[in-house]
Amino acid sequence: MSDYPEELRGLVEDYLGGLGFSEREATAGLDAAMRYSLLAGGKRIRPVLCLAAARAAGADPAGVLPAAAAIELIHTYSLIHDDLPAMDDDDLRRGRPTSHVVHGDDVAILAGDGLFAEAIRLFCERQEGEPARVLAALGELARATGVEGMVGGQYRDVTLARPGISSASRPGMPGSGADLRELHALKTGRLISASVVVPLILAGLDDEAMAPYRGFADELGVLFQIVDDILDVTGSDEQLGKPRGSDERLGKLTYVSLFGLERARELAAESHAKALAALTEAGGETADLELITDLIHTRRR
Amino acid sequence: MSDYPEELRGLVEDYLGGLGFSEREATAGLDAAMRYSLLAGGKRIRPVLCLAAARAAGADPAGVLPAAAAIELIHTYSLIHDDLPAMDDDDLRRGRPTSHVVHGDDVAILAGDGLFAEAIRLFCERQEGEPARVLAALGELARATGVEGMVGGQYRDVTLARPGISSASRPGMPGSGADLRELHALKTGRLISASVVVPLILAGLDDEAMAPYRGFADELGVLFQIVDDILDVTGSDEQLGKPRGSDERLGKLTYVSLFGLERARELAAESHAKALAALTEAGGETADLELITDLIHTRRR
Repeated sequence: MSDYPEELRGLVEDYLGGLGFSEREATAGLDAAMRYSLLAGGKRIRPVLCLAAARAAGADPAGVLPAAAAIELIHTYSLIHDDLPAMDDDDLRRGRPTSHVVHGDDVAILAGDGLFAEAIRLFCERQEGEPARVLAALGELARATGVEGMVGGQYRDVTLARPGISSASRPGMPGSGADLRELHALKTGRLISASVVVPLILAGLDDEAMAPYRGFADELGVLFQIVDDILDVTGSDEQLGKPRGSDERLGKLTYVSLFGLERARELAAESHAKALAALTEAGGETADLELITDLIHTRRR
Repeated sequence: MSDYPEELRGLVEDYLGGLGFSEREATAGLDAAMRYSLLAGGKRIRPVLCLAAARAAGADPAGVLPAAAAIELIHTYSLIHDDLPAMDDDDLRRGRPTSHVVHGDDVAILAGDGLFAEAIRLFCERQEGEPARVLAALGELARATGVEGMVGGQYRDVTLARPGISSASRPGMPGSGADLRELHALKTGRLISASVVVPLILAGLDDEAMAPYRGFADELGVLFQIVDDILDVTGSDEQLGKPRGSDERLGKLTYVSLFGLERARELAAESHAKALAALTEAGGETADLELITDLIHTRRR
């Protein structure tokens, strides 16, 4: 981990640790539940990406901390909801009992809802910059989070290739390679991509300067997911912080289930090379972004 | 209902009916689940309030339709999550099966999450006005939605006076009149209040001009909840669109359980008078806001 931009991670960790969501006793327990999941550690890839992208554009990384934290709050809310018994039913996350195990399903649902709302509040109240840019950046984050992003991808994940109620809202068609790429581009890729694009909008980059960064960001989302799927079958429970093979247990469509382990590793290497090439094209102070790209490729959990 | 501002409701209904959240086949089912709950009818009190408040401030009601729709999307998402088996476990809403009954718990959770995200997107992308005002108005809505608002109130509702897991996130202390008022001020009042305040921020009202409107808006939230509690014991299942007495079944703290039916009716009349007095103080073109206040007091469902 010594090759990770620890200085940026330190900024993120300090900022997140200083957040409080409730000023009244009546909701102190909700605040505690939200912070239980938010402060569970992890590499903080999304907010660190956000700060690194600001630096690449020549802006002060600390200046985008509210936006970066908002993205991490949204990521955390999605993990809490994904882990619910009604969804993936995971009891462990980062080696600790998941929110619903500790707080009950109802409080876990509300902790997720609360994190989402507080992310928007943080962005509106604390992110500095030209209001028009802040609004555009928040719009980008909302798109990445909604039906054409994270939530849409999770919907596809729970409905694709899993037996269940058949209805208009649950088509249940068999999954293909194209489905897989679309699913992950939505579920994981869009928020990773927004972590790069949001600070660049705040920095005022125009569409032309943005294009190669978008290419990089999209490829990074793909790389992240391929490695995630590989780790689900090769990592130890301890490394993963959750039971190995949970994707397989749920009959999920993954890069490994679709292409096999060896081909998945080749795809990861190709994706890593493509991401670095896009970064070279983008230019700017991209050393931190390269480090993060390498880490996403070689991580063990 | 002839004394309701039907013209404004028509604008809201048309706008909501024209919304679509998915452009791809893969998430068409999620879009359908979101629209199932969004287009279930109802009085549309929050968005109609939003348009009426814009008119009171001398602005064009149609100009705040994106903000008004965003508030209705957020209200709808909160109903879907509140109805879940892990929360209030309600099978009927507005006379129709609730989202999780039709689509399954997982899709219902995601339909709620999706409506929330699309509300923010709508606000960022379509609400016109000075960016600084749009951002301030969205911040107000986020506060009303989060821990110091709707989500915090729902947390209080599920943890207060209901037996369950005892933990730091679930204090389970007995409820008092003060608790009740705080709970509803958060759960219901803040979003009703935001429905009035958000269009006034967009219209550029300063704090001094805003103060009496805030007083009106807060009182309207109280009135709404007292009447809701009364209807839960006096309405018919058919009128309510859900089984009568569901609050009682859940052992919930309500104005009726705490003060009795007669005193609750007196409290409603007092609250109605206070709201109208605040409106008189506020001034402006408030005829529609008065109609809505009367309707909230006299409604039968």
